[in-house]
Amino acid sequence: MHSFKDFVTAFGEHFSRKHFPESPVNLYAPGDYFLSWGGKRIRPVMCLMGNELFDEVHPDSWEVATAVELFHNFTLIHDDIMDEATLRRGMETVHVKYGLNTALLSGDVMMIRAYEYLSKIQPQYLHRILTLFNTTAREVCEGQQLDIDFEQQDNVSLDHYIHMISLKTSVLLAASLEMGAILGGASDGNCRHLYAFGKNLGIAFQVQDDYLDAFGDPEKFGKAVGGDIRQNKKTFLLLHALEVATPAQKETLLRLMQDNPADKVEQVLAIFKACNIDAWARDLKDKYLQTALGHLDAIAVREVRKEPLRELAEFLIQRAY
Amino acid sequence: MHSFKDFVTAFGEHFSRKHFPESPVNLYAPGDYFLSWGGKRIRPVMCLMGNELFDEVHPDSWEVATAVELFHNFTLIHDDIMDEATLRRGMETVHVKYGLNTALLSGDVMMIRAYEYLSKIQPQYLHRILTLFNTTAREVCEGQQLDIDFEQQDNVSLDHYIHMISLKTSVLLAASLEMGAILGGASDGNCRHLYAFGKNLGIAFQVQDDYLDAFGDPEKFGKAVGGDIRQNKKTFLLLHALEVATPAQKETLLRLMQDNPADKVEQVLAIFKACNIDAWARDLKDKYLQTALGHLDAIAVREVRKEPLRELAEFLIQRAY
Repeated sequence: MHSFKDFVTAFGEHFSRKHFPESPVNLYAPGDYFLSWGGKRIRPVMCLMGNELFDEVHPDSWEVATAVELFHNFTLIHDDIMDEATLRRGMETVHVKYGLNTALLSGDVMMIRAYEYLSKIQPQYLHRILTLFNTTAREVCEGQQLDIDFEQQDNVSLDHYIHMISLKTSVLLAASLEMGAILGGASDGNCRHLYAFGKNLGIAFQVQDDYLDAFGDPEKFGKAVGGDIRQNKKTFLLLHALEVATPAQKETLLRLMQDNPADKVEQVLAIFKACNIDAWARDLKDKYLQTALGHLDAIAVREVRKEPLRELAEFLIQRAY
Repeated sequence: MHSFKDFVTAFGEHFSRKHFPESPVNLYAPGDYFLSWGGKRIRPVMCLMGNELFDEVHPDSWEVATAVELFHNFTLIHDDIMDEATLRRGMETVHVKYGLNTALLSGDVMMIRAYEYLSKIQPQYLHRILTLFNTTAREVCEGQQLDIDFEQQDNVSLDHYIHMISLKTSVLLAASLEMGAILGGASDGNCRHLYAFGKNLGIAFQVQDDYLDAFGDPEKFGKAVGGDIRQNKKTFLLLHALEVATPAQKETLLRLMQDNPADKVEQVLAIFKACNIDAWARDLKDKYLQTALGHLDAIAVREVRKEPLRELAEFLIQRAY
């Protein structure tokens, strides 16, 4: 068995090779540039862990893991275009460095490259893996579209937001685990539990992310708090606050979002605290985390095999508050 | 056996159903809009014909044909963004009607949808078809990038241009035929000949397209001649003219391209004719057409089965001049 950290190191080395031909350089250099930034490679590692949960690591897991990571990076390149983001991890985004057309096309070809890695797996697994990969890929696009849609909508409910977040981020985590499990020969029932573990863990992570942006310790969190509030981002916190606030509080919130006063972050946080949004968010995160862990418990393998996945959950939901 | 026209009609009906879910409407409506314009659907019909060349039509051919057509339309949506095209077939392009972000994302999801159709075929064919589809898809992106690159380059040779055109347009025609042939149980040798038929036919078609834009009969061609010349497009004709012109003619050509005088089309055409570019282009087109037909001849099936493919070649290379 490999620990979560073992897999992070092993996949990092495996993935650091070249993924594209030399030519045409203007098509492939942007992809090399984007992939060279490194990262934790959470999704491919989840594929490997989902696989080793059931059996020794299957060689095809590395191909599927690579496909997942390339697909994820393709979405980041295109999302950065849509969000007009200029920086990612402190580096110029692809469309800023190379122009829109090149970012568009090098994203397209990165997605195709993902499918090329997928096509390398043993034929007996291909249909099932490809079907899950396709469904997930399309759901990720749906999540991105809903995220764009929500920016223009006033009446986004918490349920709709959770649906959007599930599609945009959680289903790829869940499917990464399940694709590994399929290669490990897992039963349908075990696959379903593992998928549900990943999906709920992803939502818990997103709730935490929203929470930390408002209430996190800037020293531990590594960045100033209130970024989402300044941008009027429709986070879990804001959506719930708009649902539970008194009419007067709600009016103040909406006015603050419109007027953007200098002390907006402090004023919004004061309302959040008056509405107990912080405690609510911690409870919500715990609810999804416990649901996730319940599905992990339900998987019919020895507890010792589940250790790496518990490490993963701790890693994702570790940030203190 | 079905004629080329039979297949055009049959595939048109088959393809006219809905290809996307209802929701999110902002993600899927642009795809429905773009696909609703219809068209000859040459590529999917080539897949069906490549299949029936060897056997009765295999049900999976319809899935692969649909995947090919969706992939082709995805490339058109993204190419229109890159080319900043405002109209296609007289209709507003997707990014003009719906905005850049929606065009980008609805193109992405159309490509994924293509892979969803591919994944429906019988598992024993999936690996081989998926591998060819992936290679071809990546080559189409390479061709698009080379086309963009060439716009900025002064010294594009005819060989490089043919390489670009092969990637950008011919390989998808060739692969459509071959994927059908694979489903028809064709041998590797027959597959190779059929692929070469499609690839050379595609190049012949592109030579003809460039020729007609300069020398075509406007009444038969359906549009005014000289569009490529006005835009300084690097066509077969211009590239060859720059190779064979006298120093004085070459200097005049380059000056005309830079100065854009009112009678530019007439002056460029006069140089083209003085250099016998028109006869050269007809010969070049014939060379590729004959090479294509030679590969069709070499395929080891009865001549009567090849009739629909000869009809296709006539349809593509029929336009009088």
